[in-house]
Amino acid sequence: MQFQLTDEFIEQVEVLIAKNDGDGLKALLHDLHFADVAEILHELDTDEATYIVKLLDSEITSEILIELDDDFRERILDQLTPSEIADELDEMDTDDAADIIAELDDHVQKQVISHIEDDEHAADIVDLLRYDEDTAGGLMAKELVRVKETWTVAGCVREMRRQAENVTRVHSIYVTDKQGKLKGRLSLKDLLTAPGKAHISDVYIPKVDYVTVHTEAEEVARMMQKYDLEAIPVVDDEGILVGRITIDDIVDFIKEEAEKDYQMAAGISEDVEADDSIWHLTRARLPWLILALIGGFVSVSVLGTFSGAMNDHRELFFFVPLIAAMAGNVGVQSSAIVLQGIANNSLKGSLWKRLIKEILLSLLNGFLLATILVVGGMLVLGLTFLFGITIAISLISVIITASLIGTFMPILLDKWGIDPAMATGPFITTSNDIFGILIYFTIAKIILGF
Amino acid sequence: MQFQLTDEFIEQVEVLIAKNDGDGLKALLHDLHFADVAEILHELDTDEATYIVKLLDSEITSEILIELDDDFRERILDQLTPSEIADELDEMDTDDAADIIAELDDHVQKQVISHIEDDEHAADIVDLLRYDEDTAGGLMAKELVRVKETWTVAGCVREMRRQAENVTRVHSIYVTDKQGKLKGRLSLKDLLTAPGKAHISDVYIPKVDYVTVHTEAEEVARMMQKYDLEAIPVVDDEGILVGRITIDDIVDFIKEEAEKDYQMAAGISEDVEADDSIWHLTRARLPWLILALIGGFVSVSVLGTFSGAMNDHRELFFFVPLIAAMAGNVGVQSSAIVLQGIANNSLKGSLWKRLIKEILLSLLNGFLLATILVVGGMLVLGLTFLFGITIAISLISVIITASLIGTFMPILLDKWGIDPAMATGPFITTSNDIFGILIYFTIAKIILGF
Repeated sequence: MQFQLTDEFIEQVEVLIAKNDGDGLKALLHDLHFADVAEILHELDTDEATYIVKLLDSEITSEILIELDDDFRERILDQLTPSEIADELDEMDTDDAADIIAELDDHVQKQVISHIEDDEHAADIVDLLRYDEDTAGGLMAKELVRVKETWTVAGCVREMRRQAENVTRVHSIYVTDKQGKLKGRLSLKDLLTAPGKAHISDVYIPKVDYVTVHTEAEEVARMMQKYDLEAIPVVDDEGILVGRITIDDIVDFIKEEAEKDYQMAAGISEDVEADDSIWHLTRARLPWLILALIGGFVSVSVLGTFSGAMNDHRELFFFVPLIAAMAGNVGVQSSAIVLQGIANNSLKGSLWKRLIKEILLSLLNGFLLATILVVGGMLVLGLTFLFGITIAISLISVIITASLIGTFMPILLDKWGIDPAMATGPFITTSNDIFGILIYFTIAKIILGF
Repeated sequence: MQFQLTDEFIEQVEVLIAKNDGDGLKALLHDLHFADVAEILHELDTDEATYIVKLLDSEITSEILIELDDDFRERILDQLTPSEIADELDEMDTDDAADIIAELDDHVQKQVISHIEDDEHAADIVDLLRYDEDTAGGLMAKELVRVKETWTVAGCVREMRRQAENVTRVHSIYVTDKQGKLKGRLSLKDLLTAPGKAHISDVYIPKVDYVTVHTEAEEVARMMQKYDLEAIPVVDDEGILVGRITIDDIVDFIKEEAEKDYQMAAGISEDVEADDSIWHLTRARLPWLILALIGGFVSVSVLGTFSGAMNDHRELFFFVPLIAAMAGNVGVQSSAIVLQGIANNSLKGSLWKRLIKEILLSLLNGFLLATILVVGGMLVLGLTFLFGITIAISLISVIITASLIGTFMPILLDKWGIDPAMATGPFITTSNDIFGILIYFTIAKIILGF
């Protein structure tokens, strides 16, 4: 039942475009879901994709455009006239239309808006452009079904049928007072089962979760997940119902945030994909590599100050990458767990308890790893006992330090209002490299005396 | 409007439990959303939480139990009788009930099932236990609204009212033939606007996305996201409609998968939280640390074979952590981008193209970083020109190798059917450490000759 995109299919599409066979192309794409057509467009070049967008009905192409990657969509829109873009926006929900129009240049924006046929739709889109994209105002759509508490159920059903025309999916019917203030909600199910003469004020559910236009997107996502909501109404500062956010937008938001966090942990500071340009990829990756390089410089200097050890204890230097790797890995593990706790709001208990727990955990891990290291090192590499003890104490100390840095760096950053996700990846590994080496050689100096 | 959990509130709850003041507690918790009560329970000990579960109505506690962490829920259920557990399951949707019952011991399962009042509900739950939890069968609920294509719209509304009683949220009405085979769907909106005498066969939408009971959960999530679905019907091998999956379950699934991937990248092999036991945390973290330790052993041996360089070129050893850190960071960056491409199914183009792109990207990054390194090294650390050239060529070579390993390791693992997420984190950093050091010293040996 599911469409599978093949190279042959793409070729077929490209041949039809080259032959300028619009009818053949329409027939070929007719039965496909818009998300599948969007996938096909991503395999074509801009001119070919634009050809298809101009060819198909704007009822379908408006949906396709929403699915495309931002960059690719921009390139296609560049080839459309303001009036053609307006036709597409006419078919979109206000939230999607506002997102797309926000990507256009200022003067094109004005032209496009002037070409939108439905004045109310245009006004709604312009209104949405005011909000920051990371707030509920930036996520919401204006389309919703609203009824007044004074109406009867029968009148409500009539009105609902009218309003539902403009709303792709009806999740909930929102009840307002005469001034438009949000009072509660009504499910379609309730509407189907209530007697026609009943007043809405008698049947609606006055408890309703809502957010304001200023609520942060992250908080909206958290609420919708926690309370299993499929849509949430948005009110302005006066409590007037101004829009609603649906779960599909939140699903996209959650995915994007998870990808950003993942990339941040890997030391990639902009949202990139494997198929982005080399320049774009470099811009996202280079800053973290420079940070690691500077950290590397510091470690070179630290090692330089201990160069005296090279005469009698050259094996010390062979263990440097091992110590650095353990410090880096432990730090990343600790910080990842704490970061997820911060993100899920599930970190409980006092900092002291956490401190003691991390130390115990590191002692346990450190002791087990040090045993393996010393036994392996003495048997396989023929280390002396004193050297083995040096390595073991260093390893345990480094693991404790690394796990404490990994645990408390994100907590501190979060307290100071800095995104704690910054703390993972290159930042933690680099600082733990340096501290690890410093601790290792200091302990070695004390025990071995050089 | 939103409930904020405070320490004072928890204390108030604990005092009421200690005083055995059930009525006071009921009054205090009465207006709260079940997700908020679940949050409160997480702050209490098992006995206190069990007290509240026994106190409140099972209509509410069934919802609360679903929200709790698995471990905590298990401890509470241990303190309930099979008949008390059955009361809770009676109120739950079949998918949630099946998930919870699957956590119980076999003999308790049987007792609990025998106590479920509604026989059909019990049979549905038992049926769901057959499916693997990572398939559509394991995710689906039996509750759905189904109508036959031969019915009239009016008859359908009547029947729907009856069925909707058992279904928390009506997303879509599914249309089947007489044998129960899925034929299409109908929206509530359509039902509201169609004339009562019309036959369902005239108004339903025959195109409907569906999955089979065997479809993997990941594929279900991908489809629901791609096609913006809020619910998807599930059919068996004969095409008979057997259940549906709703978007809220998929939201949870997406979140969990993202967390697992994130933890895997940080070298944590089981799903853990900051508040898990030290033993549980050790089990999840230690295997990766042992892997890193073994890698460290190899790097010790590699360095040992180049110990001859220590007489004339001791600075070479100072740069080891820098080279290893750059190799590790570049590898993790490359693998993270490719992994997300694999997960999103968005990797396009041939392997050759990707190979050339990675090499160009690494050359660009490597050249920029090598310049900084050499200039910095000569000015600040007073390196000789020949040594600077050695470091520069090594750095560029190491970056190219690391990015190729980072890029192609996940692609190869994926081709071989191994979870490519394994390739990030400790695995990539460890192998890149070793290769990085090997390349570095080999190049140094050729240029400096020792």
